[in-house]
Amino acid sequence: MLFIIDRNADTSAQNQLREQIIAAILNGQLPAGTKMPSTRKLAKNLSLSRTTVVLVYEKLVENDFLIALNRSGFMVSDAAVSHLPMAVKLSPVRTSIDWKARTDALLSHQRNIVKPANWQDFPYPFVYGQPDASLFPLPAWRECSRQAMSQSAMRDWASDAVTADDPELIEEIRTKLLPKRGIYAGAEEILITMGAQNGLYLIASALMKGGVRVGIENPGYPDARNIFEFCGAALLPLEIDGEGVVVGDALKSAQMVYVTPSHQYPTTVTLSEERRAKLLDAASSRDLLVIEDDFESDTNYTGESVPALKSQDGEGRVIYVGSLSKSMFPGLRLGYIVASAGLIRELRALRRLIVRHAPSNNQRTTALFIAQGYHDAYIRKLHNAYGERWEKMRAGLDNHLPGMTTVPSFGGTSFWIRGPEELDAELLATRALKEGVVLEPGAVHFMQAEEGRRFFRLGFSSIATNRIDEGITRLARLLDLR
Amino acid sequence: MLFIIDRNADTSAQNQLREQIIAAILNGQLPAGTKMPSTRKLAKNLSLSRTTVVLVYEKLVENDFLIALNRSGFMVSDAAVSHLPMAVKLSPVRTSIDWKARTDALLSHQRNIVKPANWQDFPYPFVYGQPDASLFPLPAWRECSRQAMSQSAMRDWASDAVTADDPELIEEIRTKLLPKRGIYAGAEEILITMGAQNGLYLIASALMKGGVRVGIENPGYPDARNIFEFCGAALLPLEIDGEGVVVGDALKSAQMVYVTPSHQYPTTVTLSEERRAKLLDAASSRDLLVIEDDFESDTNYTGESVPALKSQDGEGRVIYVGSLSKSMFPGLRLGYIVASAGLIRELRALRRLIVRHAPSNNQRTTALFIAQGYHDAYIRKLHNAYGERWEKMRAGLDNHLPGMTTVPSFGGTSFWIRGPEELDAELLATRALKEGVVLEPGAVHFMQAEEGRRFFRLGFSSIATNRIDEGITRLARLLDLR
Repeated sequence: MLFIIDRNADTSAQNQLREQIIAAILNGQLPAGTKMPSTRKLAKNLSLSRTTVVLVYEKLVENDFLIALNRSGFMVSDAAVSHLPMAVKLSPVRTSIDWKARTDALLSHQRNIVKPANWQDFPYPFVYGQPDASLFPLPAWRECSRQAMSQSAMRDWASDAVTADDPELIEEIRTKLLPKRGIYAGAEEILITMGAQNGLYLIASALMKGGVRVGIENPGYPDARNIFEFCGAALLPLEIDGEGVVVGDALKSAQMVYVTPSHQYPTTVTLSEERRAKLLDAASSRDLLVIEDDFESDTNYTGESVPALKSQDGEGRVIYVGSLSKSMFPGLRLGYIVASAGLIRELRALRRLIVRHAPSNNQRTTALFIAQGYHDAYIRKLHNAYGERWEKMRAGLDNHLPGMTTVPSFGGTSFWIRGPEELDAELLATRALKEGVVLEPGAVHFMQAEEGRRFFRLGFSSIATNRIDEGITRLARLLDLR
Repeated sequence: MLFIIDRNADTSAQNQLREQIIAAILNGQLPAGTKMPSTRKLAKNLSLSRTTVVLVYEKLVENDFLIALNRSGFMVSDAAVSHLPMAVKLSPVRTSIDWKARTDALLSHQRNIVKPANWQDFPYPFVYGQPDASLFPLPAWRECSRQAMSQSAMRDWASDAVTADDPELIEEIRTKLLPKRGIYAGAEEILITMGAQNGLYLIASALMKGGVRVGIENPGYPDARNIFEFCGAALLPLEIDGEGVVVGDALKSAQMVYVTPSHQYPTTVTLSEERRAKLLDAASSRDLLVIEDDFESDTNYTGESVPALKSQDGEGRVIYVGSLSKSMFPGLRLGYIVASAGLIRELRALRRLIVRHAPSNNQRTTALFIAQGYHDAYIRKLHNAYGERWEKMRAGLDNHLPGMTTVPSFGGTSFWIRGPEELDAELLATRALKEGVVLEPGAVHFMQAEEGRRFFRLGFSSIATNRIDEGITRLARLLDLR
């Protein structure tokens, strides 16, 4: 019986050995009744301390995988395999069904942002929306997670909450996060979502069925476009200029409108005071519903931070979508919707059908992370790190790609670049990879890909500050600007 | 400045104090520049050790909430509040929008299972689907969670996986869980979902739009009925008898069929060999797709466990939905779909729009929980505990409610009871609560509520074994059977 212990592995030798013995039992290589090698012998073979092996065996006895024979070692128990049904052989699948034809055609044909899966292996990754893991306060998260797993806390979150959210997380969002955006909401006006993306899906699925006309920024967020389309909306492209989304005739026939006022996606321009007022007036006079995606809530590196559009919403027309992906980590999949209690009620009923609720343990851990000030400290840390990179980016772009940054940008985590007339950004991206530079072609952000051919985006949340200038220099070289 | 330390609270005095100081700073009760009380004074007031207070202050300095003044105590820093925008007062909402009229009417009008929120406070809770927290191996879960939060593991799960699942979890499901159901699948045939419920939603949303005709067990799972209806399916009720779902004319016009072969929901009857063969033949000859909801995969307390229908699927027509809610805890919201790679691809694209993916940290923790044998041990523990309760239930029902258990039940975590002709189970449930007994009226499981008036369900996953007999006795008394 051969076991291999990898000393460089992340899990202890003890865990490795336990896992391998269990696998051997479950896969039938160690059938019930098999006598296990003596702890002394096995310890010697694997050059482990005998105690380690003893501990592993004892744990396996606890778990009914082994039986301890008095004074004569250990044996594989039959309890371990009693639950395995007779293996059933599958006859190879005979007919193959045309799934594409049976499923919604949109699914496999939508255009999405794609980055090279191995973007982390490139020296100059100007990718967007991926966190810099080195900045995340992992020990703090561990500590909060530990607290959330206490016996009594567990009682709160083990069972199926059906439609309920963790009241502690709601309270933290309500009293600590929303006030920083100028929003003062009641608990009944907040719904926890599986990230901002899930928030958009819930809103679209509840409100856009059957061709509801939705104004959407163009260029804009491709996932929003895809979600709204899938949910049955008819999309009206809205132009973007230096003050953000243009509030004009294109909006006349709309019933809903989707905007990213804090930093327009992908151009990063902040919606001006005048435009905000104009948009809210239009909403009020034309009975419009406004979806505010505050995905990059507070990333202004120069001057005051601008409160959310929702903070000026006197009629309950603004449906606010918030995210914890940027301020925690994207893999956590947590976000929230703030809207009138009446809408939240409907969205809660819909969420019940789709996911019931976000995982309770993560809700509680995040609540503690906010309550104990770690979230706030992390935001400030990010803000400083990104602010520094933003300055470097701006300087680098002014020096090496003069006149190509399109809008007066003063925040966000990326720059939106308009290349020369004849540029094909897709081609540029391919050639850039060879130089170790990862950038994102802009076409996918436009409803008509062709309009976006010359645009590309440079994100700076993942690239080291001291790599920025060289990365941009290499780009300039590819663009034959030097 | 008043802080209150609750010695019986679950969080340490240190955490409580830190939280309260942060709250006071963020809520403006401790404005920037405020001098904090000396550690000696505060420790005395709260009768805490001075070290505790010092530790709290130092942590708050680390997090930029306080500034340490050399030799003269601590002061509230302005960094802490620098991110608060000027408070914006909301004018009270003027118009109120009719959200019910704007959202899908189905949402707020669907019939759902409702249990008293405080069911845990009743001595005889015959509720269904809630775990017995006292049986869950919390220390094991903590250990796996700790391992999943190691620096290197974190790198795997912090970033947005977009459409990918944790390969380690897929591998554990593929090699350890599915073989126990007789299923041998490739990694490309498995999709991780936010619980079985989310699995059903993904399938329905991808395959049932525009009135696809779906056969559904009646009585059956109300959530499935609600999801399919919401996604646009036309439902065909299928009768249930002692062998499970009846494969007859009702199925003739169906394009898809939803079944719970392992233990029919809610009757717990297991689908017979003959019926399985008949169903798969019908599927093959009529080009039917079969959704197998294996929600209670392996809860037979007498005799062999029956492999999944999917294990006999030679044509890739069976779409298998598995759940980890029962075998981990429902609050975790994890499940999986096993189907042809072609369908999994489409469902993955759809999941991207809805939630992207299940939280990565929970995927990794669960993978470790399975890999290290804790899952298997827990299943056996549950199996023994539930088996014991099941025997007690059967004995109690035979003694006190003779002839009311409808089908030859030999598993599951509940009993399905047909009361006397004239019984109104809703009324019974209300009266039972006064006796401390919680039961679930059956009407909600029927497409026509009236058909189910006399039925009710007694779950036994949450009630203590020694309470079962008395609980049933009280029920019998209410039914005037003694």
